[in-house]
Amino acid sequence: MNEIKLFCPATIANVSCGFDVLGLCLESTGDQMLIRKVSTPGVRITKIEGQQLPLEAEKNVAGVAALALLKDLDLDFGFEIEIIKIIKPGSGIGSSAASAAGAVFGINKLLGMPFNPTQLVGFAIQGEALASGTAHADNVAPALLGGFTLVKGYTPLEVIKLNTPKQLFATVIHPQIEVKTADARSVLKQSIPLKKAIVQWGNLAGLVSALYTEDYELLSRCLHDEIIEPMRSPLIPGFHKVKEAVNKAGALGSGISGSGPSIFALSKGKAMAEKVAVAMGDVYKDFGVDYDLHISGINTEGVKVLS
Amino acid sequence: MNEIKLFCPATIANVSCGFDVLGLCLESTGDQMLIRKVSTPGVRITKIEGQQLPLEAEKNVAGVAALALLKDLDLDFGFEIEIIKIIKPGSGIGSSAASAAGAVFGINKLLGMPFNPTQLVGFAIQGEALASGTAHADNVAPALLGGFTLVKGYTPLEVIKLNTPKQLFATVIHPQIEVKTADARSVLKQSIPLKKAIVQWGNLAGLVSALYTEDYELLSRCLHDEIIEPMRSPLIPGFHKVKEAVNKAGALGSGISGSGPSIFALSKGKAMAEKVAVAMGDVYKDFGVDYDLHISGINTEGVKVLS
Repeated sequence: MNEIKLFCPATIANVSCGFDVLGLCLESTGDQMLIRKVSTPGVRITKIEGQQLPLEAEKNVAGVAALALLKDLDLDFGFEIEIIKIIKPGSGIGSSAASAAGAVFGINKLLGMPFNPTQLVGFAIQGEALASGTAHADNVAPALLGGFTLVKGYTPLEVIKLNTPKQLFATVIHPQIEVKTADARSVLKQSIPLKKAIVQWGNLAGLVSALYTEDYELLSRCLHDEIIEPMRSPLIPGFHKVKEAVNKAGALGSGISGSGPSIFALSKGKAMAEKVAVAMGDVYKDFGVDYDLHISGINTEGVKVLS
Repeated sequence: MNEIKLFCPATIANVSCGFDVLGLCLESTGDQMLIRKVSTPGVRITKIEGQQLPLEAEKNVAGVAALALLKDLDLDFGFEIEIIKIIKPGSGIGSSAASAAGAVFGINKLLGMPFNPTQLVGFAIQGEALASGTAHADNVAPALLGGFTLVKGYTPLEVIKLNTPKQLFATVIHPQIEVKTADARSVLKQSIPLKKAIVQWGNLAGLVSALYTEDYELLSRCLHDEIIEPMRSPLIPGFHKVKEAVNKAGALGSGISGSGPSIFALSKGKAMAEKVAVAMGDVYKDFGVDYDLHISGINTEGVKVLS
């Protein structure tokens, strides 16, 4: 096998109560990537469709992640990467993570899979570091492992794949508002009340239990963010109206996707996820803000081989 | 049935990374309680063996919990309670919780079980409020539900029973040092660094996952307390030596049981739990401090009917 075509999924990081540790992988929203083994050593990004992004490997998240993987291998051949970018950068659904994850997954496949998924996450976060300044794994982990993932820690890096309830669907609205990751980071307070932290970790522990027992009602009761959402939601006009509308429509819960501006909701069943999408869209229609909508099952596989 | 004899189990609250939310129930350490239906309305504590504790129902945790349950029932009969107290008050393994849990469990049984376990926890925490000033559920929940429990929240009260890995054993050492719950509370800082909170909830989420997947190695890697242990451990002389000794012996992890001074360790298999007990005891022997040791399986049932 000298060439591989991939689906590189979008992802939702944090998932309300799991700031910096939890993430989930989407089924129907993602980029495409073609990776080709070539005789010239190194990594070349030969084509990017859909977005204006740097072609130099050292300045491109896919390139940096690929170079991280290849660094210690001393190969006498190399790789070309073509990217069809569907996920908009800055949307909050893991655009850079999809590219980083796709690059390391594909090259690992073409090399005969010398690396395990955790090692791949370790390479991919070096691409994330280029995109956002921090080597965070909460998008690349679900993009590579699929389903719900937990980043247990970084020293050493440990990622855990959790169970995914079968009837869970996600709805994501991306209002065309710019929220810079740096701004989303700068509003975070460095110190938080112990009382709120206890509520947050009670919710996260309950959410993890609900994922394993596939208890949708418990999952719904745990989808609250005591800490980060109150700090970040003022950056997203219409956020509270969307939350109100999706609750009324019957979603299990909702929150900021990653650092925003996308807002996600989780629902039981596809029909409910579609109803929630209409409710979300109506809010931004009233605001006169353009938006993209995604309705998606949970992708329990991660990056997929298309051909 | 007019009389019931109960085993009221000791419990470990917090379990390292689950401060104020997580607890587990012990198999082989606990009090005994006899509850008798009598024609006189109200609650009377007729006998307490093993400890000097108030016999007036309104000043006794079992009495207060029982009265909370009976409050709205308007019964023309009442209950007598005899307690054989084995768990030492102030030991940090849920002495008051055992009494409160036993009283509400037993009376509920004698009444034909009108209340569900969460309602029983709600009554029992009123006994806890008498004992420690706060109506905390992290001991009464495991005492009533058995196994590992999560107190998801108090408004409304929600307790969740988690899975218990089959080969898990606990070792608890109670050094005869007094740590007042009020002191253990007063050393807590009201505000904590966000970074440490993230590590803590990553560990707790990993621990819950490990309970469901029965992954002892992951469980071991998650048994860390970034936040409370550093504040409270100076109140327990020998704490770090015990931790070091049990790690060396091969325990999965260890920490402060509740607000101390008891120290718990979790192990895979009974033989390891026994080895860990020897290691714990050796530390306090060297210190010249008397101690009690408990080696116990996890009680997945909670309060048990003896006859």
